[in-house]
Amino acid sequence: MTLLDQLNWRYATKKMDPSKAVPAEKVDAIIDATLLAPTSSGTQPFELIVVTNPEVRAELQVAASNQAQLTDGSHLLVFAAWDDYTDERIDAVAQLNVEVRGENPMIDAYYGNLKAMYVPRDAEVNYAHAARQAYIALGVAMVAAAEQEVDATPMEGFDPDEVDRILGLRERGLRSVVLLPLGYRDPSGDWLLPMPKVRKSRDAMVTVVD
Amino acid sequence: MTLLDQLNWRYATKKMDPSKAVPAEKVDAIIDATLLAPTSSGTQPFELIVVTNPEVRAELQVAASNQAQLTDGSHLLVFAAWDDYTDERIDAVAQLNVEVRGENPMIDAYYGNLKAMYVPRDAEVNYAHAARQAYIALGVAMVAAAEQEVDATPMEGFDPDEVDRILGLRERGLRSVVLLPLGYRDPSGDWLLPMPKVRKSRDAMVTVVD
Repeated sequence: MTLLDQLNWRYATKKMDPSKAVPAEKVDAIIDATLLAPTSSGTQPFELIVVTNPEVRAELQVAASNQAQLTDGSHLLVFAAWDDYTDERIDAVAQLNVEVRGENPMIDAYYGNLKAMYVPRDAEVNYAHAARQAYIALGVAMVAAAEQEVDATPMEGFDPDEVDRILGLRERGLRSVVLLPLGYRDPSGDWLLPMPKVRKSRDAMVTVVD
Repeated sequence: MTLLDQLNWRYATKKMDPSKAVPAEKVDAIIDATLLAPTSSGTQPFELIVVTNPEVRAELQVAASNQAQLTDGSHLLVFAAWDDYTDERIDAVAQLNVEVRGENPMIDAYYGNLKAMYVPRDAEVNYAHAARQAYIALGVAMVAAAEQEVDATPMEGFDPDEVDRILGLRERGLRSVVLLPLGYRDPSGDWLLPMPKVRKSRDAMVTVVD
């Protein structure tokens, strides 16, 4: 399948088949792709929580307007962004760069500048920036799921404080940003599946300045 | 190439070859994929400005710390998010849904609820939400470019007010979010190309709750 085929195949699955679990190797492929997503200055300022535990997913479901995919799917990806940029976090990114690429004064200078720019900013500004990077990874994750012919339903409709509490994210300096249950569509039970995809026309979305 | 191959092939190209232009059919494929990116409630709350005009790109370059890719590449994609959610904008999304899927009271109810939730919110909150959706599309666009073996360099380092002014975005209710020059790498001139990709380990990024 080309990317275009994959994007047309996928949809925000409304009903997943609880009898079908996504195989571990497919989940791994989706996670591998997600972790290769580009992020600002290579900071990768988010973590992925992969929830399979049924009780925890049931608890998270209550915090997510009882959406069925959280328990009908087999895996739940929680994208959790850094609550702030700190010297320690950026130093760790710089250190990893040095480990992979060798000592280089450019690396120190680059991340030194980044710390000077980011760390004094309000935590909310930094969290908002980190969350955007998580959304790049979300885009890649949805393509990766489609490539694996795994269904995925991106969800913003949840109580982030509750999700943070259930998963203990705040103590780790993380804040839940978006949920992505993985599973398999239930063709007989999904009202959205037969409906054609809706997208605006190119004319409505694109301006060419030539 | 698999998605993993594509993600490993791509990198934030530092030096593009100004003698090589991306063919129109490849730009079209990238745009088509970008417009198929999933967005919250299908609102697609952003527009794409595709700049090829050399003078406009040179002017934008000044607003983007003089980064060379803006003029060494052949096309510049500007992701511009809605500055706010309005009744008119959400009504247009609902109307498009009705055109494609037929009259359905669920559509009216859904988007009616969305308006009641979004429109009273502060414009900055709505813009921030719209910008996140543009980042999903950015993730898809970078995969699409890699699939086409086109290089792309995501850029946040620019003066958004200047970019908005040059492209007349504010008058259209849009705000520039992120830039993506497209072009072809110059292997002899790009210091980043020979360096290995840096990504955190799975252990550092993933927590399993099983």
